[in-house]
Amino acid sequence: MIPARLSLVTLGAVDVTRLRDFYEAMGWKPATSTEDFASFVLGGAVLALYPRDLLQSEAAPDLAAPPAGSWSGVTFALNVDHVDEVDQVFDAAVRAGARPVAVPKDRDWGGRSGYIADPEENRWEIAWAPGARFDTRGAVIDF
Amino acid sequence: MIPARLSLVTLGAVDVTRLRDFYEAMGWKPATSTEDFASFVLGGAVLALYPRDLLQSEAAPDLAAPPAGSWSGVTFALNVDHVDEVDQVFDAAVRAGARPVAVPKDRDWGGRSGYIADPEENRWEIAWAPGARFDTRGAVIDF
Repeated sequence: MIPARLSLVTLGAVDVTRLRDFYEAMGWKPATSTEDFASFVLGGAVLALYPRDLLQSEAAPDLAAPPAGSWSGVTFALNVDHVDEVDQVFDAAVRAGARPVAVPKDRDWGGRSGYIADPEENRWEIAWAPGARFDTRGAVIDF
Repeated sequence: MIPARLSLVTLGAVDVTRLRDFYEAMGWKPATSTEDFASFVLGGAVLALYPRDLLQSEAAPDLAAPPAGSWSGVTFALNVDHVDEVDQVFDAAVRAGARPVAVPKDRDWGGRSGYIADPEENRWEIAWAPGARFDTRGAVIDF
């Protein structure tokens, strides 16, 4: 029996301090913060930052290191409860230092979203999806 | 005000069907499943699968595509409630078709974990962390 859980996402950070400062500027408070580790409880999952070389040595010693300037192949999403929050949150993230990648627009699948980049080119979709429900602390209930 | 939420992780899949079949073999039931999209509600966050080229065109058109054979730079974790579940879940994942990367061991930070790979080399840590708490559906409460 394998529990259906996505508990943490860990970003292998080139510069943990810079990334931590960025996410703190977004208004997120770290649950843990040391020189080489930071974690943020984000709704029902944790975002963690850990030095890229150390993370690779334990998780992916058999693969090549991610090359600079290429996309990771993964995106993250911050979903809001109401469609009119998408543009507000997108704008607030850009004011906090995120780089806008794609301004919000209505999507074919019925929602609305835009994309931002953090200082290490991780991509976040600021999204509203019809039918998605979240509890009071932001954990997903239905999607 | 930017809500502190990590709602979705979307894997840019080379082969959505193959990845969906893998996660279904883990015993996870898709909330949505179409030819080019699948989603799984995993505790308090969603894992989504979407074709890599389509995801990149909306999220990272300014970057190079992820090269084959290189690590994404990101890991995911499935955290269990009790330390003795780590090895059980690790073994169950391997029986379901995951490739073992690092067998579980006690970690310097006080927990226990091992790593597996899905068919597209996404890395999952099967972990127990002291002090982490989850609600009845697996969403993180404290970390």
